[in-house]
Amino acid sequence: MNQKIKYQLLEGDSKVSLPDNLVFGRNFSNHIFEMDYDPAEGGWVNAKIKKYEDFNLSPAAMSLHYGQEIFEGLKAYKHENGKIALFRPEKNFERMNRSAKRLCMPEIDIDFVLEALKEVVRIDQDFIPTKEGHSLYIRPVMFSTDPFLGVRPSEKYKFFILLSPVGPYYPEGFKPVKIMATKEYVRAVRKGVGECKTAGNYAASLLGQKIAKEQGYSQVLWLDAIEQKYLEEVGTMNIFVQFKDEVVTPPLQGTILPGVTRMSVIQLLKNQGYNVNERRVTIDEVVDGYKDGTLLELFGTGTAAIISSVGRLKYGEELLKFSDDEAGELGKKLYKEITDIQFGRAEDRFNWLTFLD
Amino acid sequence: MNQKIKYQLLEGDSKVSLPDNLVFGRNFSNHIFEMDYDPAEGGWVNAKIKKYEDFNLSPAAMSLHYGQEIFEGLKAYKHENGKIALFRPEKNFERMNRSAKRLCMPEIDIDFVLEALKEVVRIDQDFIPTKEGHSLYIRPVMFSTDPFLGVRPSEKYKFFILLSPVGPYYPEGFKPVKIMATKEYVRAVRKGVGECKTAGNYAASLLGQKIAKEQGYSQVLWLDAIEQKYLEEVGTMNIFVQFKDEVVTPPLQGTILPGVTRMSVIQLLKNQGYNVNERRVTIDEVVDGYKDGTLLELFGTGTAAIISSVGRLKYGEELLKFSDDEAGELGKKLYKEITDIQFGRAEDRFNWLTFLD
Repeated sequence: MNQKIKYQLLEGDSKVSLPDNLVFGRNFSNHIFEMDYDPAEGGWVNAKIKKYEDFNLSPAAMSLHYGQEIFEGLKAYKHENGKIALFRPEKNFERMNRSAKRLCMPEIDIDFVLEALKEVVRIDQDFIPTKEGHSLYIRPVMFSTDPFLGVRPSEKYKFFILLSPVGPYYPEGFKPVKIMATKEYVRAVRKGVGECKTAGNYAASLLGQKIAKEQGYSQVLWLDAIEQKYLEEVGTMNIFVQFKDEVVTPPLQGTILPGVTRMSVIQLLKNQGYNVNERRVTIDEVVDGYKDGTLLELFGTGTAAIISSVGRLKYGEELLKFSDDEAGELGKKLYKEITDIQFGRAEDRFNWLTFLD
Repeated sequence: MNQKIKYQLLEGDSKVSLPDNLVFGRNFSNHIFEMDYDPAEGGWVNAKIKKYEDFNLSPAAMSLHYGQEIFEGLKAYKHENGKIALFRPEKNFERMNRSAKRLCMPEIDIDFVLEALKEVVRIDQDFIPTKEGHSLYIRPVMFSTDPFLGVRPSEKYKFFILLSPVGPYYPEGFKPVKIMATKEYVRAVRKGVGECKTAGNYAASLLGQKIAKEQGYSQVLWLDAIEQKYLEEVGTMNIFVQFKDEVVTPPLQGTILPGVTRMSVIQLLKNQGYNVNERRVTIDEVVDGYKDGTLLELFGTGTAAIISSVGRLKYGEELLKFSDDEAGELGKKLYKEITDIQFGRAEDRFNWLTFLD
């Protein structure tokens, strides 16, 4: 791709003052990167960094009707030495291209988009909060824009990158979460789009999530759609189960999101000699392990919270209680190890960070 | 709901000239109806009929990220006596409310929205084409608008009704279609959102559809996600199978769209003494019936095409050939009966039509 980025930057006083209590996903930086896909113009065109403002969208734009919408989530961190680091951004753009293929959307040039991302983060770097546990959440999105009501892939698309300064996911510190396994609703099925980061998967998950919340649980533990007994993922995270002799996480067989934090945790654990297995694990195996003491802890992994220790797991009549106050040992350790790398407090020994300069 | 509709109508010359060859879903009328949902204002507010123009949408609007988007499709017909008829519009709005519940979106007041629909169709009635087989396609849509990146139901929504003049679905006349059953991809699974008219279902269907097209078939025949042997639906239509002694269509068990045309065809057939059964039917039963001559014909039902006769069905190595030129007898008969009612050429004996005045 031989594109140049056009700049339409805000002029005048651009002093940034971030609110004291940054809520996740509510605040946005001054600029966004965007570009358009138009086969008549040869592909991706009009790459620009411009003021954060509303899009003009036709009521007939296909994304509103047929849901060709994919996204990614990653973070930028400002280190004490002033350097700005992105955490494994190429993994997100690779996954975005896999989502694009499955949803019949155009792929992006990863090198170009990574340069564009660095550029917009550089311009809005004052929006990266520097307080403990704070970071800049980055949201790349692609959606279809053809004004057409026939059901087929859109011809035109828009890609953009939104920047959102965020506080720590758990403002009161690293606390365990309560989750609930459900057989009432499912999130995805093999041969569907469960492994894609596409809007429809999230819409489909809301009701199960809502019911869990009403019962006092913050996330749903999804079970597989076919037999309704295998663990899939938790709300917006991947799930890990630590047994005495192994750490298990469900394998990538098309129904769950291949998380970048999941991948990083597997690498960390293997590197430290843990017996890590990507294998199917049933909810009964989890319950039995809890009862006979061979199950040590459960935790979720994701970009927003990094690690979420599971304090309670409800499944039908079963209630597995770990701790309501104290995160599990392995979860705590992994949280520290990953965030130490992300925030530049530990050596980046796996080459996970991409610096802006 | 005690709302009044505000009018922001186009002024001046509003002479309408429709293109000669109306392609489905490409042309839109001058006005749209829209209203906004805001819990802080007590629910649905700002109901208005206004110029058809682009929306302003925040890059953070939840619909672009998490896919809370539902829609409907129905038609208005101009009869020879000048009256304008809607086909079973209350069924569409009832279904929209069921979709809304499953996707954690607010319900609409059906009476109010039906009045709004009549009003906008009345204002843009010159956009209802009067040529043989032409009609006004109506597209109600609801989508989430909160500018927020946390995964949860949006608080705010927009509802709108778009009007699109359309020609006959098969411009060369009522011709059979070629369809292909696939085991490679699935559309929906029980306990998911398959029965909702929601954007994500369509996005998920595009790749299977694309592969079928590449092999010369215009639509996919979806099989169930669990056992991959039961018929589900065809592309954007419900499927009917006529055996010698019964007409079968898959039952509504959560995975397929409960079509308004499907419902109408069942009623018509029952009324005429056919043995109609909503029951599960396997692809093997279809293949066997074709081979031993007990299967007479297959057809799809949907708002856009009304009836689509199946000329060929490909399934793995099997190719079931009916006719490439001539639609099946039952399909033809039903197409005539339904369109005669819709266009006012036959008595509306089931009270399916809602007139504007």
